[in-house]
Amino acid sequence: MTALDWAFVVFDYAAVAVFGATGALAAARRKEDIVTFAFFAAITGVGGGTLRDLLIGAPVFWVNSPGYLIVCVLAALAVWVVGERTWRYFALLWLDAVGLSAYAIVGAAKALTMGVHPVSAVVMGVLTATFGGVIRDVLAVAPSVLLRRELYVSCALAGAAVFVILTWFGLDNLVASGAGFLSAFAIRAGAIRYGWALRGFPGKDKPGS
Amino acid sequence: MTALDWAFVVFDYAAVAVFGATGALAAARRKEDIVTFAFFAAITGVGGGTLRDLLIGAPVFWVNSPGYLIVCVLAALAVWVVGERTWRYFALLWLDAVGLSAYAIVGAAKALTMGVHPVSAVVMGVLTATFGGVIRDVLAVAPSVLLRRELYVSCALAGAAVFVILTWFGLDNLVASGAGFLSAFAIRAGAIRYGWALRGFPGKDKPGS
Amino acid sequence: MTALDWAFVVFDYAAVAVFGATGALAAARRKEDIVTFAFFAAITGVGGGTLRDLLIGAPVFWVNSPGYLIVCVLAALAVWVVGERTWRYFALLWLDAVGLSAYAIVGAAKALTMGVHPVSAVVMGVLTATFGGVIRDVLAVAPSVLLRRELYVSCALAGAAVFVILTWFGLDNLVASGAGFLSAFAIRAGAIRYGWALRGFPGKDKPGS
Repeated sequence: MTALDWAFVVFDYAAVAVFGATGALAAARRKEDIVTFAFFAAITGVGGGTLRDLLIGAPVFWVNSPGYLIVCVLAALAVWVVGERTWRYFALLWLDAVGLSAYAIVGAAKALTMGVHPVSAVVMGVLTATFGGVIRDVLAVAPSVLLRRELYVSCALAGAAVFVILTWFGLDNLVASGAGFLSAFAIRAGAIRYGWALRGFPGKDKPGS
Repeated sequence: MTALDWAFVVFDYAAVAVFGATGALAAARRKEDIVTFAFFAAITGVGGGTLRDLLIGAPVFWVNSPGYLIVCVLAALAVWVVGERTWRYFALLWLDAVGLSAYAIVGAAKALTMGVHPVSAVVMGVLTATFGGVIRDVLAVAPSVLLRRELYVSCALAGAAVFVILTWFGLDNLVASGAGFLSAFAIRAGAIRYGWALRGFPGKDKPGS
Repeated sequence: MTALDWAFVVFDYAAVAVFGATGALAAARRKEDIVTFAFFAAITGVGGGTLRDLLIGAPVFWVNSPGYLIVCVLAALAVWVVGERTWRYFALLWLDAVGLSAYAIVGAAKALTMGVHPVSAVVMGVLTATFGGVIRDVLAVAPSVLLRRELYVSCALAGAAVFVILTWFGLDNLVASGAGFLSAFAIRAGAIRYGWALRGFPGKDKPGS
């Protein structure tokens, strides 16, 4: 494998670990036991990539590579051991931003490799980056990442779109993925630091159907 | 393609657009931004058909036909631009009835084409017609279409069953799908206009487990 | 088929029926109609196995074996007819324990048969046994089995792990599955009778993110 391939693998496992840790944190907030920690870590860590693989018809990536699940379990143990420290949330927030950006590129890249249409490849990047968190929030009955005000899904969308467009124009894989990653991360950083958000729907909508 | 094939395609895209619009409406009620509008429109518009394709082992229909996703984005934009008008809910309610009826037939027909057992084909019709809305309601933390009192799932069930049974008896595709569509739509219309509902479970059940 | 094969088939349908009945009970608590009863029974009864089959790339087990869906509908009818009796919850709780234990083994065994890595086979056992209930609780807006205090997911994990490890060491299929089933059931019985639970996360965690 080339250095770039290695970088992809490292990013891939790192993103699984980070998302897995956010899953374990959701379990921590509810005072769950260690098995539930591991369950939430696994669902959050591999959920997005699992949906991507099902949609594009690829073998689900973790089924015959148990390293991913083991990384999730280790992330769950780490969260358990670290316990409650104020900096933990802070660290996780930024690591989550890294994971979000990395997964948007990894997801879109895998879809392109499978010959998926570019528009769908962007969607696969978004799903890979966000769906683990969506499932985590549904299962933990927590406010969904989909419904938070600050930019989140949009960061994955921007990163995946930049990557796919640059690849479409024939740019080098390294340049395209670097630019995509940085686009996603920069926007997410702005959202975390300055509360960047898109304008919400302005209507004085009634809650009735 | 014959006129019937064209009719199927038109119905298919129309149902995606209509369900997509109901997804965007769910986002509107929560004052989400335009990206979340599009996300909800896409999930609601293609969610049911996606589940069907995964279950019957077919390639997921929208992955290499990005027109479906684009239709969802356009539906989201339309809801955003139209803004809050009273007639909008009214129009959507009836368009949703058309989409529900159309998708019940489209879903069952695709399953039959793939050689699925007739009983399962009826189930696929029901899932295609209702699951996008189920996911929408779970993600938007809204009351589920599954739990509403008036007939909804039952309409899709009736339509898909009529279609599959008539096809089983060898009737022409056009007759079978027309009868199925009208069955579903007529029942749904009665539910909307007159609040038709099946009798709920009568027990004075305790909420305990 | 040998007697063991028959036992597997009987267990399989029995587990679907029992989980289907718990789905119908969730509908009963909400006073739903008979179609919703059947819908919840089907989703709960076949949901876990469906996820397993999608993940390991097997044809979804019920799509061309409508007997499973029919069993779910019968379970829904049975719950409807039996109505509200105090012993019903009690019976269901223990039948659910049998279903949980049986499905953990059936799920792991099918995964091993498909050549899945042993670690993932354990996960498939857990998912098969628990995911139908997870979907049921999400759709019925009920407290999730994932979040309950007493042992539940852990029982499936223990049973599947015992089965896979004994199989790995070359033990007879009957011995391995018997030991796995009894491990899961014994732990679950302890959880029901004596409230066995793992220690929850000890931190005085803040609910903030």
